[in-house]
Amino acid sequence: MSVHFFLPTRVLLDEDCVRKNASLFKEFGTKALIVTGKHSARANGSLQDVTDALTAQGIGFAIFDKVETNPTIANVREGAAFAKQNNADFVIGIGGGSPMDASKAIALLACQNLPDQMLFTGPYTQQILPLILLPTTAGTGSEVTQYSILTNDLAQSKTSIATPLLFPKLALIDAKYTSGLPLRTTINTAIDALSHAIEGMLSTKANAITNLLAEESIRKIVRNFSNLLNGTTDASCRADLIYASTLAGIVIAHTGTTAVHCMGYSLTYFHHIDHGRANGLLLASFLAFAEKQQPEAIRHLLNIMGLEDTAAFRDVLNRLFGEKEKITNEEFQKFSGLAIHAKNIANCTTVPSQDDLYNMYVQSFS
Amino acid sequence: MSVHFFLPTRVLLDEDCVRKNASLFKEFGTKALIVTGKHSARANGSLQDVTDALTAQGIGFAIFDKVETNPTIANVREGAAFAKQNNADFVIGIGGGSPMDASKAIALLACQNLPDQMLFTGPYTQQILPLILLPTTAGTGSEVTQYSILTNDLAQSKTSIATPLLFPKLALIDAKYTSGLPLRTTINTAIDALSHAIEGMLSTKANAITNLLAEESIRKIVRNFSNLLNGTTDASCRADLIYASTLAGIVIAHTGTTAVHCMGYSLTYFHHIDHGRANGLLLASFLAFAEKQQPEAIRHLLNIMGLEDTAAFRDVLNRLFGEKEKITNEEFQKFSGLAIHAKNIANCTTVPSQDDLYNMYVQSFS
Repeated sequence: MSVHFFLPTRVLLDEDCVRKNASLFKEFGTKALIVTGKHSARANGSLQDVTDALTAQGIGFAIFDKVETNPTIANVREGAAFAKQNNADFVIGIGGGSPMDASKAIALLACQNLPDQMLFTGPYTQQILPLILLPTTAGTGSEVTQYSILTNDLAQSKTSIATPLLFPKLALIDAKYTSGLPLRTTINTAIDALSHAIEGMLSTKANAITNLLAEESIRKIVRNFSNLLNGTTDASCRADLIYASTLAGIVIAHTGTTAVHCMGYSLTYFHHIDHGRANGLLLASFLAFAEKQQPEAIRHLLNIMGLEDTAAFRDVLNRLFGEKEKITNEEFQKFSGLAIHAKNIANCTTVPSQDDLYNMYVQSFS
Repeated sequence: MSVHFFLPTRVLLDEDCVRKNASLFKEFGTKALIVTGKHSARANGSLQDVTDALTAQGIGFAIFDKVETNPTIANVREGAAFAKQNNADFVIGIGGGSPMDASKAIALLACQNLPDQMLFTGPYTQQILPLILLPTTAGTGSEVTQYSILTNDLAQSKTSIATPLLFPKLALIDAKYTSGLPLRTTINTAIDALSHAIEGMLSTKANAITNLLAEESIRKIVRNFSNLLNGTTDASCRADLIYASTLAGIVIAHTGTTAVHCMGYSLTYFHHIDHGRANGLLLASFLAFAEKQQPEAIRHLLNIMGLEDTAAFRDVLNRLFGEKEKITNEEFQKFSGLAIHAKNIANCTTVPSQDDLYNMYVQSFS
């Protein structure tokens, strides 16, 4: 038995957790940089909760609300310059994966001069602005990981900055911020979290504790499949999903992701398919592929999900995602050639060849 | 749903984990203070593994091997003076609960001048020597908690120093160090861990993640009951038990302990009954007491253990512990009067009165 567990983030998941824990902000300084997107943090009340809490604690703040979907290096460099200009002591990232990942890169770049070619590789010094993250979708798990995933035009893909420096000091998680999300986003993000939990269990870095958390995450998501299919995403469903996505985030902080994410990035980069949807469209094919070499592991996963076989899993996902995008086999050839070079391919307990990746793409979109 | 999770300790549980991770020691400085007892760390090979690793990394060390069983304040003050005298950069605690808890207090007292009356209460500054802990029994879980439990003659009990400062930076956990433990110690420590997991589930501070870890811990211990009864504690049993004790430690880091520990401290203070045995002798009576107000919670616990009722649980524990100590009802009156004032009584989901505590003592020893 070998277990590695490291999560230096204080996790507080609770209704009204920002208001209840407002005094914690004081530990981080007297000037905050809030990093978010243009609209959603205003619409769901999270930005107001945070600025109220900061004001009540006498903490100043500046708002950088220019984070793009799938943020680029240029986008986070702009945020880092804004952080420096405002002498921020710490960073509060609010949003889905894009704002949270951007806030991590901004906190890093505000303290370290890293040219583009060193941004994803390091070496890094120990300097970073302390990070507080508030997820407003239930998918990415970025609030409990050491990853910041940016669009990397050089690699024609999304690439991770991965360093323990990026673990937030504090994750404040409140399902209420997800209550107004469109059903489509709720489904995409829930299946992103499911993909994290499943990939985590099929990673060479899985261990007893990550499997325990992954199984709990999968159970919580799967028991809401009917809610997702029927659009009945009430408060209890939302609570399950955000708890599940945080658990799945803790899992991938240890296991990394696998082939599904490597393949999904091309769908997002070249076809602008939402990240969670991209993973979800590929997930059943990956299980069917892995089943040939790991029948017992896949049987165990299907048992946790209460599903008969991988075809039944594909069927649920097809119903959740509806009509699929049209992509040519030539494009799949190109995507397979890109994905095979992604470093997380090596995390797979059943390592696919480039042909295997191609076949999974084709099967997923047929 | 409300979840609080915070564990800033890097947990590495693995065979030969000291040798495999020797390079990690370098992150903590150039001079280590090793804190341990007189004999066991020499007998089980852990001290040799640590000094070999330090030597290989060019790190100097001094050894304070004078930790007593149930260490006193005077004992840890002596260790802290030794740490200062040797200019230690960090502390490596090796052993069961006594050396690990002592090492925490020593790391604190080496940096802060705390008179006796402030030692258990603070306020503390942020100064402490970084801590690395190696458990050599599978019970206390101290390697993943913020507690240091010392004998407190003023309170005629054991009292906790509890501050996040005491979380070790690193826990190196290898079941092989427990392989030579006498069966009696193996049983006492395993039941200490079981008590942590069970008390954690019956604490007002329990949450979804701590319950998940507690249930896993309980399953791993219970499936080794027959090994403990038969004395067949092979490597696989040892691996289960140390994994379970670490999980249970993570649980009580969040939930605290409850009435069982409060009551057990008198048995240890006045009758020198081993800490784990003291808890184990009281545990079934506590479940029978709590069952009256929380029948479903106790039914759930018994289900996890695969036991019919609390009588069956008492029967297993009786067989594990053999003949009980003779203690008078007058003493139980006194112990109840002490335990009712312990702060962890308030953690119980079913809070006992002083009479309830008395009745549990009497029932446990009848």
